[in-house]
Amino acid sequence: MNDNEAKELFKFVIDTHKALSQILRFSTVPTIHKQNVAEHSYFVALIAWLICVRMETKGIEINTEKVLKLSLIHDLPESVSGDMPRSVKKGEIRKIITELEDSVFQMMIGDLPEDMYDELSATYRRWELGDSLEEKVMRFSDILESAIYCLCEKELGNSNMDRIISNMIIWIDGFEDELMKSLGNEYKRKVVCEE
Amino acid sequence: MNDNEAKELFKFVIDTHKALSQILRFSTVPTIHKQNVAEHSYFVALIAWLICVRMETKGIEINTEKVLKLSLIHDLPESVSGDMPRSVKKGEIRKIITELEDSVFQMMIGDLPEDMYDELSATYRRWELGDSLEEKVMRFSDILESAIYCLCEKELGNSNMDRIISNMIIWIDGFEDELMKSLGNEYKRKVVCEE
Amino acid sequence: MNDNEAKELFKFVIDTHKALSQILRFSTVPTIHKQNVAEHSYFVALIAWLICVRMETKGIEINTEKVLKLSLIHDLPESVSGDMPRSVKKGEIRKIITELEDSVFQMMIGDLPEDMYDELSATYRRWELGDSLEEKVMRFSDILESAIYCLCEKELGNSNMDRIISNMIIWIDGFEDELMKSLGNEYKRKVVCEE
Amino acid sequence: MNDNEAKELFKFVIDTHKALSQILRFSTVPTIHKQNVAEHSYFVALIAWLICVRMETKGIEINTEKVLKLSLIHDLPESVSGDMPRSVKKGEIRKIITELEDSVFQMMIGDLPEDMYDELSATYRRWELGDSLEEKVMRFSDILESAIYCLCEKELGNSNMDRIISNMIIWIDGFEDELMKSLGNEYKRKVVCEE
Amino acid sequence: MNDNEAKELFKFVIDTHKALSQILRFSTVPTIHKQNVAEHSYFVALIAWLICVRMETKGIEINTEKVLKLSLIHDLPESVSGDMPRSVKKGEIRKIITELEDSVFQMMIGDLPEDMYDELSATYRRWELGDSLEEKVMRFSDILESAIYCLCEKELGNSNMDRIISNMIIWIDGFEDELMKSLGNEYKRKVVCEE
Amino acid sequence: MNDNEAKELFKFVIDTHKALSQILRFSTVPTIHKQNVAEHSYFVALIAWLICVRMETKGIEINTEKVLKLSLIHDLPESVSGDMPRSVKKGEIRKIITELEDSVFQMMIGDLPEDMYDELSATYRRWELGDSLEEKVMRFSDILESAIYCLCEKELGNSNMDRIISNMIIWIDGFEDELMKSLGNEYKRKVVCEE
Repeated sequence: MNDNEAKELFKFVIDTHKALSQILRFSTVPTIHKQNVAEHSYFVALIAWLICVRMETKGIEINTEKVLKLSLIHDLPESVSGDMPRSVKKGEIRKIITELEDSVFQMMIGDLPEDMYDELSATYRRWELGDSLEEKVMRFSDILESAIYCLCEKELGNSNMDRIISNMIIWIDGFEDELMKSLGNEYKRKVVCEE
Repeated sequence: MNDNEAKELFKFVIDTHKALSQILRFSTVPTIHKQNVAEHSYFVALIAWLICVRMETKGIEINTEKVLKLSLIHDLPESVSGDMPRSVKKGEIRKIITELEDSVFQMMIGDLPEDMYDELSATYRRWELGDSLEEKVMRFSDILESAIYCLCEKELGNSNMDRIISNMIIWIDGFEDELMKSLGNEYKRKVVCEE
Repeated sequence: MNDNEAKELFKFVIDTHKALSQILRFSTVPTIHKQNVAEHSYFVALIAWLICVRMETKGIEINTEKVLKLSLIHDLPESVSGDMPRSVKKGEIRKIITELEDSVFQMMIGDLPEDMYDELSATYRRWELGDSLEEKVMRFSDILESAIYCLCEKELGNSNMDRIISNMIIWIDGFEDELMKSLGNEYKRKVVCEE
Repeated sequence: MNDNEAKELFKFVIDTHKALSQILRFSTVPTIHKQNVAEHSYFVALIAWLICVRMETKGIEINTEKVLKLSLIHDLPESVSGDMPRSVKKGEIRKIITELEDSVFQMMIGDLPEDMYDELSATYRRWELGDSLEEKVMRFSDILESAIYCLCEKELGNSNMDRIISNMIIWIDGFEDELMKSLGNEYKRKVVCEE
Repeated sequence: MNDNEAKELFKFVIDTHKALSQILRFSTVPTIHKQNVAEHSYFVALIAWLICVRMETKGIEINTEKVLKLSLIHDLPESVSGDMPRSVKKGEIRKIITELEDSVFQMMIGDLPEDMYDELSATYRRWELGDSLEEKVMRFSDILESAIYCLCEKELGNSNMDRIISNMIIWIDGFEDELMKSLGNEYKRKVVCEE
Repeated sequence: MNDNEAKELFKFVIDTHKALSQILRFSTVPTIHKQNVAEHSYFVALIAWLICVRMETKGIEINTEKVLKLSLIHDLPESVSGDMPRSVKKGEIRKIITELEDSVFQMMIGDLPEDMYDELSATYRRWELGDSLEEKVMRFSDILESAIYCLCEKELGNSNMDRIISNMIIWIDGFEDELMKSLGNEYKRKVVCEE
């Protein structure tokens, strides 16, 4: 790796580091523990991994490496655009924001050495739209992590999460996989039992 | 997945979630941005991934999936034992703490469904001691992320990191791989140039 | 005011209260003092007021009440859309975001009693585009406040603001009014002298 | 505006900016969201404005500009004296503190250009004592904002606000205006309904 | 005191200052108010003092000065080793950690002028093991303060403290002194009554 | 101790606990690490203790127990009145505030069991006025701790402390004791050398 490539890679890492440590999730709702995008993405990856383990146990073919990469990268565009509430992202606006995030993503990785650019670019998929098993596992983990964050806020006493939790449950219920169903049910038991 | 397994998995995820969001790194040094273990581990995985990309470009055989898993898991024992300064972890004490962390790790994952237990247990290696290329990449990423955190603190004005940065540079210099050398040199340029 | 109107007004106030206390400005840049939108808007109004005082002293006709109202309201749409970095808001995207914020604003005030709805709706102008003296004073105050925030961060040791400060100065220099010029010059003196 | 005046104005703005961002309200009570004086004053102004709108609708003559200015300025002396609990401010002590705050205020604005000094000085009234409709609207908004802050804390789980909320309700009930009564009743409904 | 001694003393004070302000207690549990070791130790000393007053009233001989010194010093080793959860400190591990903390303590005070070294060294006792009345009062105050912290968290809405509170109560019940029994009972009343 | 006394004592401890954990020092100056009154008082006591050790070494008679008690109690009135900037406390106002704090202190301890009331009341002295060696040591430690806090802020990058540090140095220089002189000189060396 020549000096210039090292410089580009380093710049990408430090810019991403600064932004993802700073950007907070649920930015318009009163929260107690302020969660940044990096810690969210970490837990998404951890949950997704464990789901892959069980899928493999059951003989389902899944590319765990792909799932982990998707998890690490799925919120990267937020490092430039900031966290925008999901409630805003619908209909017309959703399409616009998707385009916005895509172009932001291209801007972010544009100066990376070519091999890294190709890898991140190939991995990055508009996950809301994707349809492979890998994307589904990541998408479920993304929502389950958000739901767990809301549960943790609730356990800290925060009553502002109730409406969001209801939405989360609806989204969770949209997944038909047996394993996801079990986890969703356990979540619902936990949310109710904490009340 | 039966209800009991879902319950065990959920318990592991939520316990880990609470702990890794709460435990702060550099716990005995005055810091400005308080970094928790989850966000640290996220950036370790991201850096490690990009290094793997280049290794593959260069035709070096490396198991990226293994590297990502190692990155996600390497600080898990801290979710029970808390973050202990590296300066304390040496000589006799280091051996004791290694044993302590190992038994803590067993305790944490002990109630997971068997397949997940086996996976985490097999992945978990005392990375300070391991010797494979995968462990080396993770170890380097772990140190580089810490070094970058220190640089970010420095850029926020914090002058308490200087001695730690010196140590980081010594550790970074211990890696002989050409790519790691380039990144280390870029780091050193950056640290100097910020002064 | 009947019960229903009181309920609608109260709902608007509490929703705005929660959101504007929570949303942080400069959400993708490492900061030390986390500034929310409410405190920003307060200082914009205070600065704008003092500028109006001097304008009146100089015999320039200006509607101070209008300026104060514009200041209080100019960032209200952020209570739904979150704070989006100005660097993202340009060209095509800026037009999209302007539309987005307009519709967000309509949504926010849509349930207010009619007289209040009319007042807020009439006051609200896309200030980036407006051209009256009142809008200009508010726009200048908005930028000066942001510039002062950056200066305060700098005085706390934060070196991440330098590039943003440069942009602020360019924007400040875009105002040709003699009073704004004086304040802008004083700002530049202060920024340099702190270095 | 000559250089010297720009300097004085700038100094006032930056001193006030630093202080009001830093001083926290409810400084002796355990709170979750730390509210500074600037954000409090912002919401006071916003609430007061909406009340003025309705008063005008009802044909009541009120100087909205005056109300907004009073709201922006009413806690300015705290930028030097710090936030002192209302419970301490009674009887003899209240008179002393009022004098203290008055002299503090003179000190703060003493170096401002004359026209601004005159404006702030004329606007500033010991609001606890004032009797005009404008002062009454501001005073009510000040208390309602405090009450809403307490409600938000309660919704975050904080049970330390109950006694303060009781006091707030007593103060709110002291206002006889029909509009204020409606808002007060809605507040009481909301506080009860959250329990 | 010669320059060198002043330097050593100053270094000890500033190192301890930085560390004890930074290290947080309950580092693996989600908390709302982050308590550092310095504030914990302050309240331990205050509680211990009041207990000594009553013991003296009852004619029990107790060395209050000793109790205060023990309180100030009992968590000093944490300034190097960080706060480790009590749940980890048991059996074999407890012995290891005790040794670790002892050697850490020697390291911390090793450069102090001789008279101060001797004083701190003589005061420092492994309080978990000690058996004098002074140590018992300090030990009880240490636990009662922790229990009160948990109660305060509970009053802020945090439901994560319940299991810890149960443990605290068991430890409190282990003290047979009549005064400690009364305080323990009052604590239990308070914890129940808050529910 | 009967139930009623236990209740009174417990109430005092918990009220003080809540307030001193919450009240921040330097409440009108931009700071990075927010220091509460409890942690300040802890370090005052620690510093004062070490000074007493040396005084005893030199054969100077000093009542260490008294010094520690003074340190623990000297800022207790702030738990009701909040932290008021020292700059405000001068001339006429200082006398008023002293009276205010005295009456606040009486209010705080008024419900304690008699023996504890007598002890705290006897210990409490307006330390600004007192003249014994014990009071002087506490007073010096109070200032030195504040000065060290400012130094720590400076090392975190905060440039707002410079004027305060200058004042601290003037106050420190007012102490003529040889040991205090040495520590003051070391402080000055350290402040200069950090620049």
